[in-house]
Amino acid sequence: MHKIYAQLPDTGTLILSEEESKHLCKVMRKDVGDKVFILDGKGKKATAEITLAHSKKAEVSILEVQTIERRSAVHLTIAIAPTKNLNRIEYFVEKATEIGIDAIQPILCHQSERKILKTDRLEKIAIAAMKQSGQVFLPEISELVSVSEFIRTNPNGLIAYCPEHLTNPQLLNEVKNRESITILIGPEGDFTQEEVNFALENGYKTVSLGNSILRTETAGIYATTLISTFD
Amino acid sequence: MHKIYAQLPDTGTLILSEEESKHLCKVMRKDVGDKVFILDGKGKKATAEITLAHSKKAEVSILEVQTIERRSAVHLTIAIAPTKNLNRIEYFVEKATEIGIDAIQPILCHQSERKILKTDRLEKIAIAAMKQSGQVFLPEISELVSVSEFIRTNPNGLIAYCPEHLTNPQLLNEVKNRESITILIGPEGDFTQEEVNFALENGYKTVSLGNSILRTETAGIYATTLISTFD
Repeated sequence: MHKIYAQLPDTGTLILSEEESKHLCKVMRKDVGDKVFILDGKGKKATAEITLAHSKKAEVSILEVQTIERRSAVHLTIAIAPTKNLNRIEYFVEKATEIGIDAIQPILCHQSERKILKTDRLEKIAIAAMKQSGQVFLPEISELVSVSEFIRTNPNGLIAYCPEHLTNPQLLNEVKNRESITILIGPEGDFTQEEVNFALENGYKTVSLGNSILRTETAGIYATTLISTFD
Repeated sequence: MHKIYAQLPDTGTLILSEEESKHLCKVMRKDVGDKVFILDGKGKKATAEITLAHSKKAEVSILEVQTIERRSAVHLTIAIAPTKNLNRIEYFVEKATEIGIDAIQPILCHQSERKILKTDRLEKIAIAAMKQSGQVFLPEISELVSVSEFIRTNPNGLIAYCPEHLTNPQLLNEVKNRESITILIGPEGDFTQEEVNFALENGYKTVSLGNSILRTETAGIYATTLISTFD
C-alpha cells in the first residue's frame, strides 16, 4: 500500500502537502476511495482513505491508527562529520534509516572537508528510506554544529578513534547497560588530538570499529548495524 | 606510504602493471629510491623500493615481506543479486571490502532487474577499497551465475528471506560453530518461492537480517558487519 509521511491530525481528516499530493495523484495515479498508509515518523502508522484526489492538496480520512513500539531498547545518536563527497553522507543517512537510528547530528571538525550542509535534502532521503524499508521511525536530523559545542552539550558518549599504535575496546564492549548511546565519527582526515582530548575531558570513551580503517560513512553504517542488534 | 596491488614475485624484483606504473610515477610523482607497499590481496604486505620510475613499466625491488594473519575465524561468502542501479552493488563491494569479506558471488535470480554484470569494474573498486582501508585481503569476485547453479554447487548455506508473516532466526543465531558461511541475498523483487524452496532442499536455512526490509546492498553490508565481529 502507498505510504505517505505526514503529521497525524487530531481530527479524522488530513490535507496532504503539495509534494505528497502530487506524488499520490499524478505519479501513483491514486483516486478517491483508494487506501494509503500515513507514517508520522514517530511510530504511528495510520490507514486512511482518499477523500479528495487533488494534485496539490489531496485529502484523506483516517480510518485506524496503529502505534508501533520501538524494537530497540537503545536510543542511538550518531554525530558524524559530513563527507567531502555529498553522496557518501547521503548514503549513510539512507542506510542508517533503513537499519534504524534515532538521531543524526552533522558535526563540523577541524579537518572537515565539507563545512556547509543542507539538511533538507538529507531529510528527504531519510523519509524515502523510512517508507521503503517498512520503518516507522524517522531519525531526527539536526543542523551542522561544531564538534566542541556538541561535545559540551552531550557529554559521556563514545568517540570512534583508533590510531594504529593503540588498541581500543571494540564498540560492543562499551555499550552494555546504556539506554542512550552517542557515537562521534570524524571526517576523512580524522579528529585532531585536541578534539579527542576535549571529548575525553567531557567523559567520552574511545572505541574501535573493527580492525579496518573504515571510511566515515562506512563507520556510521557499521556502528548503526551493531547497535541495532541490541535488544 | 603509497600502496600497490600486485602478485609478489619469487625473485626480489617486480615489474608493475601499466595502470599501477602510471599512477605511481605520473599521478603520485614517485621516483627512484622512494618506498612503497605491495599488497597481494592474500595477506602479504611487502615493503619495496622503486628502482625504475617508468610510467608504463615501473620496477620495484622487494625489501621485506610481512604475512598478516586473517583476523576473522569465519570464511564469508555473500552471493548477491546485482542491483538495477549499478552504483548500489558497487557500493556494497566497496563497503564489504573495507569491513572484510572473503568472496562475493553475483547471482542471477528470476526477479533480477540486472541480468548482465561486468566484474572487472567491481574488482577495481575492491582493490581501491582494500588499499584505502588498510585491509590486506581482497575478496574473490566471481562471474555472475544463476542462483540455482550456485545453490547446487554450494549447499548448506543461509538465505536472507523473511516474509512479513514469518519470524525467522536472526543471522547471528545461525552462524555459531561454522567455519565457513555462505549467505544468499536476493534482488529488489526478492527471491521467488521456488528459489527459496530449492535452497531449503539443498540444506539452506532462512535467516532474518534485523527487523527492517533492507535494500539488497544494505542487507549485504549488514550481514558483512555482523559476521566481521565474530572471533
